[in-house]
Amino acid sequence: VTAKNGKGMVQVFTGDGKGKTTAALGAILRAAGHGLKIFIVFFMKGNYTCGEYITLNKLPDVTFASFGLRQFISKNKKIDPREKKQAEAALAAAGEAVRSGDYDLVVMDEINVALDYRLIALEDIIDIIKNRPAHVELILTGRNADSRLIEIADLVTEMVKIKHPYDKGVKARPGIEY
Amino acid sequence: VTAKNGKGMVQVFTGDGKGKTTAALGAILRAAGHGLKIFIVFFMKGNYTCGEYITLNKLPDVTFASFGLRQFISKNKKIDPREKKQAEAALAAAGEAVRSGDYDLVVMDEINVALDYRLIALEDIIDIIKNRPAHVELILTGRNADSRLIEIADLVTEMVKIKHPYDKGVKARPGIEY
Repeated sequence: VTAKNGKGMVQVFTGDGKGKTTAALGAILRAAGHGLKIFIVFFMKGNYTCGEYITLNKLPDVTFASFGLRQFISKNKKIDPREKKQAEAALAAAGEAVRSGDYDLVVMDEINVALDYRLIALEDIIDIIKNRPAHVELILTGRNADSRLIEIADLVTEMVKIKHPYDKGVKARPGIEY
Repeated sequence: VTAKNGKGMVQVFTGDGKGKTTAALGAILRAAGHGLKIFIVFFMKGNYTCGEYITLNKLPDVTFASFGLRQFISKNKKIDPREKKQAEAALAAAGEAVRSGDYDLVVMDEINVALDYRLIALEDIIDIIKNRPAHVELILTGRNADSRLIEIADLVTEMVKIKHPYDKGVKARPGIEY
């Protein structure tokens, strides 16, 4: 694997606004155009069919893995051990992809949320980041990014919600929101 | 054309942080997975080769058009008439794509910047938005979105820069930033 993009950085997309996962997908579209090898792990999605899966499947240089139960998680409820197991498996998959050096870009989608819900440990994420091969670019998405991750990251954008149709009761639409 | 996504909305991605165009590209990747027809107009790019063009070209349901001179524009300088002509042509292309009803999603990338530099007129943008076929979803990107456009939009995210490697003198990298 050639380090086509030189030294890999760490990007974090956080905040309560729409556009975090969407921006990660856009980064993949862009990177794939340059022939970079890409791995994306969805931490909190489950394996239901999203529009992005169909397109990602068509891009030869993109590999993806999807984890999480398809259920609403609340911070006030006790952690579902199955949910924790899924998040740990997602982190293991991400860690393996990073350490292999086979990928130029590894996206960990909603990892911030998995951490915020204490499904995975901060130290394990930092270990993956710090011990990665030099050419590997990382993108971490999800609201409530940990301050330590923001500190380590090279690029951080906070997606701030100014307006969202969910607030007016509009439901998620296929092809647009998922 | 079937209105696969029901009633089309207007999304605005603005702010000074990375992720606006990237999120629009991600929205395209997602929409293409559902078989939606997509048109994207790049207002301020010129026709140099970006990673995203290569991938967009591989997606059968995506059409794109690129405008703008490849030069730095400053608000303090006199407007270059060639730049204005390019932006007007971009708006005409976007308007035609929207009115045709042939597309489910029309992305106007960096249109906010073109407006902010007074290369195009606000009323012409509003006209396109207000008179579009009901099923057409619009995404407008670029910093300094006009307050009237924010008012009209259904979904607005401000991408706020928390950290950006450009600030440390790191240059744009192929596959990552373009």
